[in-house]
Amino acid sequence: MSTSRARGQYAKGAERREQIIQTATDVFATEGFEGTALKRVAELVGVREATLFHYFKGKQELLTAVLAERDRRAAAVGNSEKAGLDLMAPIAERNRQERGLTTLYAVASATASHPGHDSHEYFRQRYEALVGDISADISQRQHLGEVRSDVDPVQLSRLVVAAFDGLQLQWLYDKDVDMAEGLRTLIDVLLPPAG
Amino acid sequence: MSTSRARGQYAKGAERREQIIQTATDVFATEGFEGTALKRVAELVGVREATLFHYFKGKQELLTAVLAERDRRAAAVGNSEKAGLDLMAPIAERNRQERGLTTLYAVASATASHPGHDSHEYFRQRYEALVGDISADISQRQHLGEVRSDVDPVQLSRLVVAAFDGLQLQWLYDKDVDMAEGLRTLIDVLLPPAG
Repeated sequence: MSTSRARGQYAKGAERREQIIQTATDVFATEGFEGTALKRVAELVGVREATLFHYFKGKQELLTAVLAERDRRAAAVGNSEKAGLDLMAPIAERNRQERGLTTLYAVASATASHPGHDSHEYFRQRYEALVGDISADISQRQHLGEVRSDVDPVQLSRLVVAAFDGLQLQWLYDKDVDMAEGLRTLIDVLLPPAG
Repeated sequence: MSTSRARGQYAKGAERREQIIQTATDVFATEGFEGTALKRVAELVGVREATLFHYFKGKQELLTAVLAERDRRAAAVGNSEKAGLDLMAPIAERNRQERGLTTLYAVASATASHPGHDSHEYFRQRYEALVGDISADISQRQHLGEVRSDVDPVQLSRLVVAAFDGLQLQWLYDKDVDMAEGLRTLIDVLLPPAG
């Protein structure tokens, strides 16, 4: 196989993989993870079920890919202008528009807490990276005097990430819960130093 | 049937129901909800599976009973000396000792966010009552000057409940996360008024 032909095959494979993830995102978001058969995803993509297994070991691995893709889109929410704490409220607003995917994330993050679950490592690393990023932002703001400096930045970061997940769970039960407003209260009112 | 005999039958029924809940608590906590067959619970109680359906409509209803029983025990954690905000850290400490049940709760609270799920109404009411209780406590402390009064008590209550659920989720992925310490930071450091 010539190099350019190999590259063409590779590009086609990457495109097909992307197409499977997009389709699975829509179906999981609508039908839920438990309610979705891989066969259904294959039908909508227009391939045989066996072809899916060429790209993903199974349904759990496909779910992990769907959630990772959601993370990549979240990172683009702020158009690279925002990062760390400033991204929290905009991402909560985005999640409010995507109820199906948000439910999928909430269920998966709890279910995968069993060690041995296929997505366990994905979520473990995700929390580690997220808490690390927010903590770096908080630490910088503590030096600038924007965040109170009498509490360890990692502990404040864990509280912000926890508030995000927890408010989202409450919102799933009560659409009147304003996740973004709650996060802004924590970040803009409770975190700054007194005065 | 004489009244005393009816009362005896009733007491026996209540006792059997209690026994089923205790057994299901142990099995769900060890094997997880998905991994547990009702048949297994029946075997351990020493009754036929059909007998379980006399007490619970199905596995979901049994799960709701297990979680409600866990709530009742949580209310007793403070030996009636503590309530509201003062209960948060002690309950987090208790949950740390009960990893299986805590995972069960985390998974169930996310899964049941689908309206139409058998436990949806249980969790919806649970959050409503919990946010209401904490909010009443915060409101009282605002009058006493113990909590800053520039934020709506319901919003602060939602943040405390969210921090509880969210820190618990992080702890499920990293046993070094100190849930009780995080809650104490929020309640004792971030909520009091400046100065």
